[in-house]
Amino acid sequence: MTQYDPNNIFTKILKGEIPSHKIFEDDHTLAFMDVMPMVDGHCLVIPKRGSRNLLDADPTVLAQVMAAVQKVARAAVKGMGAEGCQIRQYNEQAAGQTVFHLHFHVLPLRTGDSVKPHVGGMADHAVLARHAELIRAAIEG
Amino acid sequence: MTQYDPNNIFTKILKGEIPSHKIFEDDHTLAFMDVMPMVDGHCLVIPKRGSRNLLDADPTVLAQVMAAVQKVARAAVKGMGAEGCQIRQYNEQAAGQTVFHLHFHVLPLRTGDSVKPHVGGMADHAVLARHAELIRAAIEG
Repeated sequence: MTQYDPNNIFTKILKGEIPSHKIFEDDHTLAFMDVMPMVDGHCLVIPKRGSRNLLDADPTVLAQVMAAVQKVARAAVKGMGAEGCQIRQYNEQAAGQTVFHLHFHVLPLRTGDSVKPHVGGMADHAVLARHAELIRAAIEG
Repeated sequence: MTQYDPNNIFTKILKGEIPSHKIFEDDHTLAFMDVMPMVDGHCLVIPKRGSRNLLDADPTVLAQVMAAVQKVARAAVKGMGAEGCQIRQYNEQAAGQTVFHLHFHVLPLRTGDSVKPHVGGMADHAVLARHAELIRAAIEG
């Protein structure tokens, strides 16, 4: 497998070189809105210590990021008024990975919602900002 | 959210009351083939200590199950000769959850593969047994 390349867009978001609609941050993880949402309220959770994906991740980092995924998943369901959520995590291009820094998709869903393909244009930033605010307000602990 | 109900099919698999094509087992987790595969080599990883899903899981259990997910993901990619994999985890019926015991889907993929809906008939048990053997043989450590 190809090595981790720190020159990726999520590293730039972590450094603040590229803006993002932040939801949650602690010592080990960052959560922010996906700019090409597959559903309304689609968030991403990433570790600060990079790996290419799950396959080469440090198990300690994985445990930290999953604690954040759980926190963000609960908040995304509550904040977006959803009934449940899917977690997705893609490894390598063949599986749909487009940014090569480990990340987990959190997709809040209501009955009948369908998950759109992860392509297409950027969402309206005012909408992303509003969804980020709803989810941030629902974060516990 | 509804409480965890230990009377579910994965608890029966854990107890050995229902057979499964096992891939991996340790003190905390079990991995086995999904009998309604969304792709060839579709495996499930579950904790032995039950929760309804991710939303009510104990973070310690979550860390244990993710270590197993990583191990099984690597083995599924290698054993199935895939180029990558998706991890999916569904919470509540609105998000596609059908068995209410926390589980992670591991979906090995090659370029151009598509993930089929998680419905329909059972796969051929001889095929599942062969895939389980390929993945088991690729487990490391």
